[in-house]
Amino acid sequence: MERRKVLGLAGAGVAGVAAAGAGALALTHNDAAPTAGSLDLVSETGGAIPFYGARQAGIVTPAQDRLHFCAFDVITDDRAALVEMLQDWTAAAARMTQGRDAGTFGAVGGSLEAPPDDTGEALGLPASGLTLTIGFGPTLFRNAQGKDRFGIAAKRPAALADLPKFPRDTLDAAISGGDIGVQACAHDPQVAVHAIRNLARIGMGKVSVRWSQLGFGRTSSTSTTQATPRNLFGFKDGTRNLKAEEPALLDEHLWVQPGDGPEWMTGGSYLVTRKIRMLVETWDRSPLAEQQTIIGRDKGEGAPLTGKQEHDEPDFAAQDGKGQPVIPMDSHLRLAHPDQNGGARLLRRGYNFVDGSDGLGRLNAGLFFMAYQRNPHKQFVPVQNRLAKQDALNEYIRHVSSGLFACPPGLPAADDYWGRSLFA
Amino acid sequence: MERRKVLGLAGAGVAGVAAAGAGALALTHNDAAPTAGSLDLVSETGGAIPFYGARQAGIVTPAQDRLHFCAFDVITDDRAALVEMLQDWTAAAARMTQGRDAGTFGAVGGSLEAPPDDTGEALGLPASGLTLTIGFGPTLFRNAQGKDRFGIAAKRPAALADLPKFPRDTLDAAISGGDIGVQACAHDPQVAVHAIRNLARIGMGKVSVRWSQLGFGRTSSTSTTQATPRNLFGFKDGTRNLKAEEPALLDEHLWVQPGDGPEWMTGGSYLVTRKIRMLVETWDRSPLAEQQTIIGRDKGEGAPLTGKQEHDEPDFAAQDGKGQPVIPMDSHLRLAHPDQNGGARLLRRGYNFVDGSDGLGRLNAGLFFMAYQRNPHKQFVPVQNRLAKQDALNEYIRHVSSGLFACPPGLPAADDYWGRSLFA
Repeated sequence: MERRKVLGLAGAGVAGVAAAGAGALALTHNDAAPTAGSLDLVSETGGAIPFYGARQAGIVTPAQDRLHFCAFDVITDDRAALVEMLQDWTAAAARMTQGRDAGTFGAVGGSLEAPPDDTGEALGLPASGLTLTIGFGPTLFRNAQGKDRFGIAAKRPAALADLPKFPRDTLDAAISGGDIGVQACAHDPQVAVHAIRNLARIGMGKVSVRWSQLGFGRTSSTSTTQATPRNLFGFKDGTRNLKAEEPALLDEHLWVQPGDGPEWMTGGSYLVTRKIRMLVETWDRSPLAEQQTIIGRDKGEGAPLTGKQEHDEPDFAAQDGKGQPVIPMDSHLRLAHPDQNGGARLLRRGYNFVDGSDGLGRLNAGLFFMAYQRNPHKQFVPVQNRLAKQDALNEYIRHVSSGLFACPPGLPAADDYWGRSLFA
Repeated sequence: MERRKVLGLAGAGVAGVAAAGAGALALTHNDAAPTAGSLDLVSETGGAIPFYGARQAGIVTPAQDRLHFCAFDVITDDRAALVEMLQDWTAAAARMTQGRDAGTFGAVGGSLEAPPDDTGEALGLPASGLTLTIGFGPTLFRNAQGKDRFGIAAKRPAALADLPKFPRDTLDAAISGGDIGVQACAHDPQVAVHAIRNLARIGMGKVSVRWSQLGFGRTSSTSTTQATPRNLFGFKDGTRNLKAEEPALLDEHLWVQPGDGPEWMTGGSYLVTRKIRMLVETWDRSPLAEQQTIIGRDKGEGAPLTGKQEHDEPDFAAQDGKGQPVIPMDSHLRLAHPDQNGGARLLRRGYNFVDGSDGLGRLNAGLFFMAYQRNPHKQFVPVQNRLAKQDALNEYIRHVSSGLFACPPGLPAADDYWGRSLFA
């Protein structure tokens, strides 16, 4: 049963708009792939993204606008129980991403005497572009006590070696790491939250929630069809991001290639998460000129300080009248640019966050950075080392959490399950 | 300047959809009032809601889907400075709700040598139905030390007396109360966050952020044009809510009437906020039948256990074959129903929240309850006392924060300011 057909109700929460007209329009497009033209808004809001495929969805999928990321600790040492849970998760994920209940006996079906197979808060909501993307953390292969609980330590890829401690890191261990990470992205946060919550419910007794993060306002485009969004510094972010339409670059920088490491990761990708608190109150007191020289771009258009349009190539050699580089040596643009990092590129997929206040009179706000890549030790690590040492932006940011996850390739057939390439 | 015209860019973040077609469609409706029919989705997403009027917007306004609520402490004792800030806030609110920069010299205008009058993260985004609603807390009239800092203690309404401590309250003082509360609602969280952040920026040195709360998935309808949404227990919430289309009931239960108290509040309303943590993991292990008897409604349709349709009147006298009431005596529906509370009704306007995890392996999730009313001591207080003592739902919830705010009437003219009726 599709959630919306259960109730004969359409569009109750479509992008927060429940007018009957819009709802009826959305119903037409429920579970349909996005189409071109003036109805994209509706169809992309309601549309379902295929779950099965050679690659996991949610990586090059055009970035949805809402995130619920969850890192789980595995609390069982029983390999069979873990595999069974991964099978159950896969079945639920395949259903939920298509706009269905998490289980066969949903919130309104099945026995009255048993807990429902779905928690119900997404009843009546369309698929909303939901993707669920799974990754395995270093501690799944060998836990903090060095124990290989599941007999997979030999399959741990070199690329999944722990990240080094970076200069200026102020990480909180309680919201870092995790044995398993699941990224839920959707156009409707209620749908993303519902998905994570149901995975946690299914995993009860086998996993527990280590940390979770909500995000809004995607801070990167992953497709040339998307405009570049803005982060909470007010600047466009991710102008040079890898895009779904660049397959050769994706093979070079994003997808794990044959021979890169253990075969189970071929076609997968590595995810680095960093929760980056932004000291927005301090930033907001900085003159516009200072903000622009720190970033290396102008605030309105997002053009490099040596150009006029957002996508103009920066001219790192250009000097001003005093012989100083127009794009400062410690600007974020220069330090993070592929030309300054041996060509290293990332597929960024971050989100803005506001987690209440910090108890010191300020918003607890920032960027939940997520980046997918072929090998973090050749891509994220050298870039971040450089940024952590030199970036002028460091005065305004604090890295407070960190995660690393090996995201296997997609599932090719409906009887496959998350982690089969690792566990089978 | 309208934000979107500054850049000549349309729809970059319209409900997370940036396809060129949808963006162009939205641009047509930017700053236009919502219209009827099949384009409601677009026009409501982009549309601006009038700021000036006899009532504050954001109360009976059809509930937008996203919330950023912020409680501020006033950190100055200087009345003139506070009034000046309220004037500055009003000017910024009037601009931002119409899809403009917070100030005259926005993120891309004005001097390079000064901080911008707008933080920039909403550049390119439409008004998104933003409303900003202000309220004054008890401590603005007399602070915790009993001091009347601003010479307004005599104007404190009796209806703004502190809420009593309720049975089972587990309130955290750090995220309760506040001298001033501002509710930002919008269809796009980036727009709601931008508005609160700019008010905090403008108020620097005069106010500080005491606590702030993001919410998604409105849990009430405030208009008959809206379908009833679901809370994180998976049940429809707010079926019997007061609606914008019931003016006589609104005068009776929502709007402060002449003679109710000090004249400055006539036409205003009182807001009670309660952050209600839901123990969703425990709830999710409860059988469907138990969930339904606790709520008093069925989960799918939301009908009273004595009826078939959501809006059927509950029959509290009906008994089952064993002579027991079909709607249990301790069910939430019975205890909260106006018929059981001397007719007391509220205009609820709450939101779901997930604030990461609780450090104990669970999601920190629940309901940020907000209710507007004519007199909380005659409406919210008796209902909550009853619920706190008897509601079967109490096993699954914890009240962790509480707030009370006197929200003055709307501003009738463009030269008026938030609080004039109190301070002038």
